Amino acid sequence: MDVIGVSSSRRNSENLPHVHKVGRPPRQNLLKEIAGTVRETFFADDPLRHFKDQPRSRKFVLGFQAVFPIFEWGRHYSFSKFKGDLIAGLTIASLCIPQDIGYAKLAGLPPQHGLYSSFVPPLIYAFMGSSRDIAIGPVAVVSLLLGTLLQDEIDPSKNPAEYLRLAFTATFFAGITQVTLGFFRLGFLIDFLSHAAIVGFMAGAAVTIALQQLKGLLGIKDFTKKTDIVSVMRSVFRAAHHGWNWQTILIGMSFLAFLLVAKYIGKKKKKLFWVPAIAPLISVVLSTFFVYITRADKHGVQIVKHIRRGINPASVDEIFFSGEYLAKGFRIGVLAGMIALTEAVAIGRTFASMKDYQLDGNKEMVALGTMNIVGSMTSCYVATGSFYRSAVNYMAGCHTAVSNIVMSGVVLLTLELITPLFKYTPNAILASIIISAVIGLIDIEAAILIWKIDKFDFVACMGAFFGVVFCSVEIGLLIAVSISFAKILLQVTRPRTAMLGKLPRTTVYRNILQYPDAAKVPGILIVRVDSAIYFSNSNYIKERILRWLVDEEERVKENSQPRIQYLIVEMSPVTDIDTSGIHGMEELLRSLEKRDVKISLLVLANPGPIVVDKLHASKFHEMIGEDRIFLTVEDAVRTCAPKMDLEP
Amino acid sequence: MDVIGVSSSRRNSENLPHVHKVGRPPRQNLLKEIAGTVRETFFADDPLRHFKDQPRSRKFVLGFQAVFPIFEWGRHYSFSKFKGDLIAGLTIASLCIPQDIGYAKLAGLPPQHGLYSSFVPPLIYAFMGSSRDIAIGPVAVVSLLLGTLLQDEIDPSKNPAEYLRLAFTATFFAGITQVTLGFFRLGFLIDFLSHAAIVGFMAGAAVTIALQQLKGLLGIKDFTKKTDIVSVMRSVFRAAHHGWNWQTILIGMSFLAFLLVAKYIGKKKKKLFWVPAIAPLISVVLSTFFVYITRADKHGVQIVKHIRRGINPASVDEIFFSGEYLAKGFRIGVLAGMIALTEAVAIGRTFASMKDYQLDGNKEMVALGTMNIVGSMTSCYVATGSFYRSAVNYMAGCHTAVSNIVMSGVVLLTLELITPLFKYTPNAILASIIISAVIGLIDIEAAILIWKIDKFDFVACMGAFFGVVFCSVEIGLLIAVSISFAKILLQVTRPRTAMLGKLPRTTVYRNILQYPDAAKVPGILIVRVDSAIYFSNSNYIKERILRWLVDEEERVKENSQPRIQYLIVEMSPVTDIDTSGIHGMEELLRSLEKRDVKISLLVLANPGPIVVDKLHASKFHEMIGEDRIFLTVEDAVRTCAPKMDLEP
Repeated sequence: MDVIGVSSSRRNSENLPHVHKVGRPPRQNLLKEIAGTVRETFFADDPLRHFKDQPRSRKFVLGFQAVFPIFEWGRHYSFSKFKGDLIAGLTIASLCIPQDIGYAKLAGLPPQHGLYSSFVPPLIYAFMGSSRDIAIGPVAVVSLLLGTLLQDEIDPSKNPAEYLRLAFTATFFAGITQVTLGFFRLGFLIDFLSHAAIVGFMAGAAVTIALQQLKGLLGIKDFTKKTDIVSVMRSVFRAAHHGWNWQTILIGMSFLAFLLVAKYIGKKKKKLFWVPAIAPLISVVLSTFFVYITRADKHGVQIVKHIRRGINPASVDEIFFSGEYLAKGFRIGVLAGMIALTEAVAIGRTFASMKDYQLDGNKEMVALGTMNIVGSMTSCYVATGSFYRSAVNYMAGCHTAVSNIVMSGVVLLTLELITPLFKYTPNAILASIIISAVIGLIDIEAAILIWKIDKFDFVACMGAFFGVVFCSVEIGLLIAVSISFAKILLQVTRPRTAMLGKLPRTTVYRNILQYPDAAKVPGILIVRVDSAIYFSNSNYIKERILRWLVDEEERVKENSQPRIQYLIVEMSPVTDIDTSGIHGMEELLRSLEKRDVKISLLVLANPGPIVVDKLHASKFHEMIGEDRIFLTVEDAVRTCAPKMDLEP
Repeated sequence: MDVIGVSSSRRNSENLPHVHKVGRPPRQNLLKEIAGTVRETFFADDPLRHFKDQPRSRKFVLGFQAVFPIFEWGRHYSFSKFKGDLIAGLTIASLCIPQDIGYAKLAGLPPQHGLYSSFVPPLIYAFMGSSRDIAIGPVAVVSLLLGTLLQDEIDPSKNPAEYLRLAFTATFFAGITQVTLGFFRLGFLIDFLSHAAIVGFMAGAAVTIALQQLKGLLGIKDFTKKTDIVSVMRSVFRAAHHGWNWQTILIGMSFLAFLLVAKYIGKKKKKLFWVPAIAPLISVVLSTFFVYITRADKHGVQIVKHIRRGINPASVDEIFFSGEYLAKGFRIGVLAGMIALTEAVAIGRTFASMKDYQLDGNKEMVALGTMNIVGSMTSCYVATGSFYRSAVNYMAGCHTAVSNIVMSGVVLLTLELITPLFKYTPNAILASIIISAVIGLIDIEAAILIWKIDKFDFVACMGAFFGVVFCSVEIGLLIAVSISFAKILLQVTRPRTAMLGKLPRTTVYRNILQYPDAAKVPGILIVRVDSAIYFSNSNYIKERILRWLVDEEERVKENSQPRIQYLIVEMSPVTDIDTSGIHGMEELLRSLEKRDVKISLLVLANPGPIVVDKLHASKFHEMIGEDRIFLTVEDAVRTCAPKMDLEP
């Protein structure tokens, strides 16, 4: 390999045999360079690795299996695995049926659409998805978001048919968004919602959803359409005058207590995870029976009333492919699709890392997107992976996505056979079930940990939380994304710099703030720049280095120590530099040359391969002198020190 | 200071006396920490440094001088400095008068408003600005941008009064934007337009402006309102059928040739800088005289016709403070204000670094903004620093902003006395003057350098260029900003990682791609992460490290070398880590623990102060073991190596 030396002028190498050359990597072909960047950006996981050096027929099989992973893992499927999947599938089915009905109401849709969305999408996912633990279906946060956004456009009580059509349109575009992101390998975009922002957003959404349930739980008839806490509490207290319905409250509160106790039991004893999982179904059965016996619905207890029997009707004709609602459906779909993705991918990753298998985020997105596109054509609304149901699925011992197929089958039977029985289910029960489900989304421990680790993250977390609770889901989301972006911008505009000192009895130079025993070298200022030097920070870095110099010169003067004669810039963390960065360095050099202390010159230590390359391309290495670029700070110091006049 | 050691278990320190502790900086008070961040973000230049430990009266004087720097440098002003400023002022005045008239036409405004904008704003700037070399007045790019944006709202030929009012409104809000950015110290926002994007944008604007001048230069009457090259060329060729006006072309072309020759002379001999500087005025005088004598205006040569005599009338009542144009003026003003700032700050910085004086970007913005606010009330439109006139000012030997006062005085005299004489000035001359001025904005050398240094920057440069030329100024700007942002996002989502090897005869570990003689340590994989670990990249970094491991294991297996038993992650460049980053590291650890080769464990080398602090806050240091965090890679390797079983 062709390596061009940059440093170690002969003069120095005589007395310093250890001075190494700073490597300049062989110049790469331009196309190769671009290809490398593209690969690292979009194909960081090297998805075609298995296809290499395979015969054509094998490639086809592999490609088919890549799209439908079920044909890969299906071959090793066994009865013992099925036992686990069956139990897990039955458990999540008993959990999902009452939840689905409640979530559909949250989205402003007729109850059966919740069940539809737990029938078709899980089936599609089982064929195409690669997570083994995720449980697919409608989820609380997406239902809330979708409901809020849709109701901004159409009033479901006045125009239910149009509302439903817009919901399908949004679902369709949510699926398109997900497939597009996955197909063009833009999955990393969802990483821009930081963990902290998600924690805050989820907790805010949970509070909002729980507040919405006060309508059902207290039997309030005239309830606000807004989701912020102020409007909701006002609604609640205004309704208090007319008198809340005590029968509803009694039923709702007692079953809520039952559900919470069940949840507590499940949390205390991991083995009893099935207790909270079947508690909702038990509540539904008991309360429905109770209402049917007592005819409490005649005393003001609101019930589900009608729920359509039979499996999903086709809805492909209902999607708006033209007209003003196309654009609105698109906008809502993109937003709901992204949030749904964020939740599903986070769940998928968590369980994949717990069981140690690989999950291709982009492939997951294609699977989730396809399932939503098909869903939108079969009367489903946006489905995704649910946090709580996936955890139950995992604890119930699922092995593969077959548990989703089992769940789907149970939902099918429910739709065909027993939906009429839900007629007398009181709404208060659905409210209690939703409240007990969303409580799990409030993760106070995570918030405390975020506070401990990173204050800025905590601001993002709280911003999202209060944004959702006091304004709306969209505002909360906007705040979360904005704060996350602000953090990135802060990172790229204000990178850190540090003054280095030598650790005693070593050749190692470290930040003197971190290592108080690190000693400054007299007459030399060593500064480390901790970031790539880009247009966004080149000016700041230049001025910051000059400020280090001015401060240090003042300090030195006060203590009558030797004045600063060399400025060594440690470049190890500088992985890249662009044209603005080179300009900044040139300006720094010019400023140093114009100073009173003429000798105070620039020395670079350990620039990386790309930086060396660009210094050469811009001829900057000639401007500062080839013999002023060193492999290590130690080399630079050893070369500078003997030349100095160390009188103060 | 209280430093808590993290590494160097007793067992190791016995045989390795040099193993240093990894320092944990003393925990900072939360408020102090936040204050530190705020200071570094907004007050990186420590603007109040001079105010420290001063008596109250002195503080007042300093504060006054900070707002009006003229009262600081004015005290040292001398006659010899005035000589330089006088000559420079006269030179830029002779340059600006014809340019101003042309630029006003470019912005769609009556010619006198160009002159107004060279009278009031430079005076204000001279009192408040801190650059010594900048020449204030209307500039080509901002005039074009303003003209394009204003004409999208109001047609100046149909409704000139409203158009003028909107122009003042935009100017007012441009000033407000600039003052706001400066006052809230948000000046760093303009750094987001990268150098490369500016080069492309300026060149594109120059081409667009030059194309617009074909109207005047060829005497075309029916000219397109669009600025893209396709529309303009279509206009030009359509006009060719009706016959261009040959007299106009003759005058325009011959003076354009004269101006370009003058420019060439000025470029070849730096001493003759005044030749291109006064050439425009000479052209105007000669051509006006010529047209007056021959009455060429009767033969189709278009002339300036009316130009109002007298100084700026007040225009404060004309600004839209309500109505639909308020919002439009605001939007246009914000955009024009930002672009004007970008140009002025770039110029200011360039000359400040050439003469080595400090320029406070935020203070500059306040000065520029104030001058535009006052300008908007005195019939001026957006003024800023001009590249070319500032360079002439510098070469003519200006010392202080007094040259701007001189220029302003000359413009005052022009307005009061000789504007009627411009009546017969042919438009073709103004077109030639503008063309010869904007040619300097096309910096091909810079573009070549950008290509050499950074291909991505070059894409941004070309994107901005073609966006402006083929679409519009706004689209070009949008492309430039988008590509610049994409670069930042790429930087924060796909940071670099490198495999390290040991350089022979040293204890230094370097990127094996840069230093081919760096040797891998058998059984140990050393990976360096070259960025802060944030939510935007934590997942990528985790997966990338695992991929290094898998690749290396495969290679090792093929060559039957010792298998990998340790993974050392060099953390020197990792300046920060957030909650998502900690999660990523935990997942990495979990993945490693689940691997077949159980012994392949995580070791960290040289985490920075903030990272150490956060590892502690999250108890991650306990998860990986306190004795697995080392000061240097060498320490880590020396500790790992003896424990290894090096059989392949």
